[in-house]
Amino acid sequence: MKQEEMKIAILLFDNFTALDVVGPYEVLSKIPNSKIYFVAETTGVYQDSKGFQLVADTSFEYLPTADIVLIPGGFGIDVLLTNHQVINWITNAHMHSKWTVSVCSGSLLLGAAGLLKDRKATTHWNRKAQLAAYCSDIVDERYVQDGKLLTSAGVSAGIDMALYLLSLIMGEKYAQIVQLGMEYDPQPPFNSGSPRTAPKELVEMVANRRKTEK
Amino acid sequence: MKQEEMKIAILLFDNFTALDVVGPYEVLSKIPNSKIYFVAETTGVYQDSKGFQLVADTSFEYLPTADIVLIPGGFGIDVLLTNHQVINWITNAHMHSKWTVSVCSGSLLLGAAGLLKDRKATTHWNRKAQLAAYCSDIVDERYVQDGKLLTSAGVSAGIDMALYLLSLIMGEKYAQIVQLGMEYDPQPPFNSGSPRTAPKELVEMVANRRKTEK
Repeated sequence: MKQEEMKIAILLFDNFTALDVVGPYEVLSKIPNSKIYFVAETTGVYQDSKGFQLVADTSFEYLPTADIVLIPGGFGIDVLLTNHQVINWITNAHMHSKWTVSVCSGSLLLGAAGLLKDRKATTHWNRKAQLAAYCSDIVDERYVQDGKLLTSAGVSAGIDMALYLLSLIMGEKYAQIVQLGMEYDPQPPFNSGSPRTAPKELVEMVANRRKTEK
Repeated sequence: MKQEEMKIAILLFDNFTALDVVGPYEVLSKIPNSKIYFVAETTGVYQDSKGFQLVADTSFEYLPTADIVLIPGGFGIDVLLTNHQVINWITNAHMHSKWTVSVCSGSLLLGAAGLLKDRKATTHWNRKAQLAAYCSDIVDERYVQDGKLLTSAGVSAGIDMALYLLSLIMGEKYAQIVQLGMEYDPQPPFNSGSPRTAPKELVEMVANRRKTEK
C-alpha cells in the first residue's frame, strides 16, 4: 500500500520574513513523499517588506490542517495576533497536526492562539517581552520542543529547528545527509548573531529600532 | 544630490536551489537604497525541484548589468553551462558590475563564462571536481574573495558570504547589526555539514547520489 503523502503547511502573510520561510523549506522539502503548501487566509501573492513575493495557492478552507504546520515570523505578525480567521485556522490545524512549529516571531501567533500557556517556547531575542504575554516558560535556546510544539529563535534559527525536526521524522542519519547536502557548516564572518555575543551598543540599537518600527 | 539606487541582480533558472537565493537575499536586501531584481533569460515563473516558485520579472535585455550580480546554484546549473544567452549576459554583466558573486554550484557558471581562470574560487564540496575544468585555484574555504569576485561553498554558505559582502559595502558594524537582526548564531543539531566532519559513509552516499542525478 502506498503511504500517504506528508502534508506540510507554511503560513503566508504580508511582511513575512523570507528566510523564516525558506530556511525550513529547504530542509523539510527533503522529506520523501511530502508536499509543501503555502497557505493563507486568501490565495494570492504575499510579500516581505522589500518586495520578495511568494504565492499562497492554498486557502484555509482547502487545507484545514496538515502533518506539519509551520508559522514563520516577520513584522507582519503583529496585525495577525487579533485576526480571528488566522487564529481559528491555527487552533484547529494544531488540534490535528503531528507537529506545530514556528520560526522567530511566528511563536507570538501560536501564543495568541492560546497554544503556549504552560509550554516551553522561544522566539526572536527581541520579541521575548512580547511573548511573555502568552507564555510563562520562555527559554533561552536556539529551538525548543514541548510535545508536538517546536518553536525557534530568530530568522536563521529556523534552519537549525528544521534539521532537528527532520531528525525526529526521518532519523538522525537522514538529517545529517540533508545537512551535508546543503553544506550547513556555518562560519559567520562576525560573532554578532546573539545579544550574548554582539557588542552591547549594537544590541541596544537593534532593540530601539524595533520599538520605533512597531 | 540623491545617491543612485544600488541594483542587485539575482539570476533565476529552473531547478535553482531556494536557499541559495534567499540566504543572500535576506542579507543583501538590508542595503539601504537598494533594489533586488530577479533576472532570467525570459521573464516568468521559475521553480526548484520541489515546486518552489519565484518570478523573474526582469529579462537580460532590461538589466544588462547591476552593481551586484549574484549567481545561485542548483541542479539546473548544468544545462546553463552551454547556454550562450546566459553566458553572454554573465560575461557582460561582470564587465560592468561592482561585485560578481556566486553561491554553491553557481560558480560553475562563472567558470563557464571564463571568469575564474587563474582566480581563487570555491563551490559546493561535491562540485569541486567539476569546477576544476574552469578554475586552477580552487580553495577549501566557506567563501573566497578574489578582486570583485566572491564565490562560496554549498547552499547555506551564501549567508556567510553575503554577510561578508555586506561588510565590504556598508562596513563591519552594519553587517553585525544585520547579523543580530536575523539572529544568525547558528547551532546545527548535528556536526555533519562538511565532508571534513560528517561520517565518511554519509559523504560517500551524497557523492554517489549526485553522480546518479546528473
